[in-house]
Amino acid sequence: MTNGSHADQRDKTDLLLKSKGVNAALFANPASITWLTGFAPIIETGPQPYSGGPALVWYLGGEFNLIVMDSETVDHNSMGISTLKYAGYTYETPFAGVENLANLIKGLVDGTANLHGKIGCEKNQLPTCIYEQLLECDQPQSLDGWLNPMRAVKTAEELEKLTASFALVDAGQAAAQEAVLVGMREIDVWEAVQRAVNRLAGERVPLGNDCVVSYREDNSGGFPCDLPLRPNDSLLLDLGAHYRGYWSDSCATYYPIEQSKDQARMYQTVFDALDLAISLVKPGRKANEIDWKVRELIEKSGYPIYPHHTGHGVGTTSHEEPRITPYNQNRLETGMVILLEPGIYIPEEAAVRLEDAVLVTETGAKILTHHLQRRKGGPKRQTKGNSVI
Amino acid sequence: MTNGSHADQRDKTDLLLKSKGVNAALFANPASITWLTGFAPIIETGPQPYSGGPALVWYLGGEFNLIVMDSETVDHNSMGISTLKYAGYTYETPFAGVENLANLIKGLVDGTANLHGKIGCEKNQLPTCIYEQLLECDQPQSLDGWLNPMRAVKTAEELEKLTASFALVDAGQAAAQEAVLVGMREIDVWEAVQRAVNRLAGERVPLGNDCVVSYREDNSGGFPCDLPLRPNDSLLLDLGAHYRGYWSDSCATYYPIEQSKDQARMYQTVFDALDLAISLVKPGRKANEIDWKVRELIEKSGYPIYPHHTGHGVGTTSHEEPRITPYNQNRLETGMVILLEPGIYIPEEAAVRLEDAVLVTETGAKILTHHLQRRKGGPKRQTKGNSVI
Repeated sequence: MTNGSHADQRDKTDLLLKSKGVNAALFANPASITWLTGFAPIIETGPQPYSGGPALVWYLGGEFNLIVMDSETVDHNSMGISTLKYAGYTYETPFAGVENLANLIKGLVDGTANLHGKIGCEKNQLPTCIYEQLLECDQPQSLDGWLNPMRAVKTAEELEKLTASFALVDAGQAAAQEAVLVGMREIDVWEAVQRAVNRLAGERVPLGNDCVVSYREDNSGGFPCDLPLRPNDSLLLDLGAHYRGYWSDSCATYYPIEQSKDQARMYQTVFDALDLAISLVKPGRKANEIDWKVRELIEKSGYPIYPHHTGHGVGTTSHEEPRITPYNQNRLETGMVILLEPGIYIPEEAAVRLEDAVLVTETGAKILTHHLQRRKGGPKRQTKGNSVI
Repeated sequence: MTNGSHADQRDKTDLLLKSKGVNAALFANPASITWLTGFAPIIETGPQPYSGGPALVWYLGGEFNLIVMDSETVDHNSMGISTLKYAGYTYETPFAGVENLANLIKGLVDGTANLHGKIGCEKNQLPTCIYEQLLECDQPQSLDGWLNPMRAVKTAEELEKLTASFALVDAGQAAAQEAVLVGMREIDVWEAVQRAVNRLAGERVPLGNDCVVSYREDNSGGFPCDLPLRPNDSLLLDLGAHYRGYWSDSCATYYPIEQSKDQARMYQTVFDALDLAISLVKPGRKANEIDWKVRELIEKSGYPIYPHHTGHGVGTTSHEEPRITPYNQNRLETGMVILLEPGIYIPEEAAVRLEDAVLVTETGAKILTHHLQRRKGGPKRQTKGNSVI
């Protein structure tokens, strides 16, 4: 048994690696790093010029080590695992972060000389210059995707982080509803959202995903730009926040004036589709059964079927297992957190997408998002027995 | 001669690779990709779950190709180079971005079978799973750092992009000056800055670097949090914007009420140090001569010497050559864009850093930032003959 934050994740990974005869491993996928340790690197300014590479996790015979640049702040008490640091920024010599990280890895690999078992690494994200250090030891096998199935069911600790992240998008959506007025540009609404989220969090919070007016050619998504809202337009805001390493998600559609009859019918159809999706959530349900039934509702209403997934899991990435898609026959399990997001899109004219997050519980779905209750002039929510926490 | 945007960069790179006998090359450093093509990927939401890896540039016998996921928007007319795309997002099958990108690279490598010459790649950023495709061809040599010296001198096209990026931080600094009031938190000031920048740009603009009150233990830098300004505090705002793939930079120090005598003396000392640094800029000047003389001014004033560089270049990264540091004996050249940023830090008590950007011209320095002219109650600027564009 390991201790501290995200200890369950390391215990499960330890068992998996041992069962496969892997004695040493280097993890490089950012989603794996946060899942294994709780460490959440800054993402919103891109790669740092001083850095030797992404944060890594080194595993050897049951022990895990987080590997980061010396300027990174890691809370050791809450982490419960040891951290290895290499020199990054310096002004007295040229930058040597890559060399310093490679040397650190080389030292670790040298220490495995007398150990039995295989070595593995996540090749999809590991930089080649680091991979080359592993070749001194053995031909490493790929561990890409090994942790993905385990990441789908959340721990109590992860649910706490996700709940905090969902509270931020609730605040952002509330701000958007106030900001959607005739003459406001997409970027102005976005700015109101960012302000509400940052003020509540008391820190910078990276945000995704879409903020688009209905008259765009592709009105299903995109970053906000300077397009203004006219009276009969709508605005689709698909909002995710990255907080303590965990992505939330949500989507609403707002109208600057009262909905027209056509707008109201389309909105109600998507709302019904979302309610249907939520009502179908229970442990043991096949993912693609939800997908199929929700698409069928949209089709029977006479609207075009949305050209995207019906839903997806969320966690250390913004889109992960279980995917609610036509091909996915895997069954939902208690403790999964999934987004459900049916939509209707008529290019350059009208777009509605509504998205809620739910926790899969023994009795069905527990809704984790609150933003659709607050909508202005929309139809009353049909909760169909699902609770709102 | 290549055509289109960033053609100079590709011509220079072509000459370099040919002179070294490198016939095929795969570039993976994000700074190289933007410099070679003008393509600026979204950075502020971290890696995308659908993506097969970072944007890449493939070079073969004088021809350059940009390689991106199919959902990326690339302006072909302004780029002037061909783009190869691989399938990323899909809802009808599981994600296979990594496999699709690897297959695309494998096809390119297979096409080199009858060509003479060596193959190279940027190993520091290339994911291992992509690197393994190159091994089919030959043992690739490292191209890491090869483009860095060429990146230091900017083209006219790059200067336009940098000027637009500096206009954004000017707007952000002006907003900060208004927002620095007793009771405002670091995050509130930051939010005012982000709003001003986004509104001016009409789009999302990733921002760095520091927004910290003077009573922090490390008051030289850090992301904003919920610490409030008290009457006798100051706030250090080091602001960079990432716009069209180019980073700007700037730093100011603001006071919520009139400076005390001690504050004014410290501020004036840093201002004098910055003016000295600017006055020393000219082609042929050794970088470390500027560094040494500016440190000397601070030391003679009786303040502790700042534990960081005196300056640095800026472009497709936020910190690049030429570094103005104690070790760097390289000489400044016309067309370089450098930041100069002396500071004084007394932990938990007082901090001042002032930073201007300058273009190295035949006659000296042309200042690219305007924020220090706007400061409230600070000393009058001593321009020493340098122009402000």
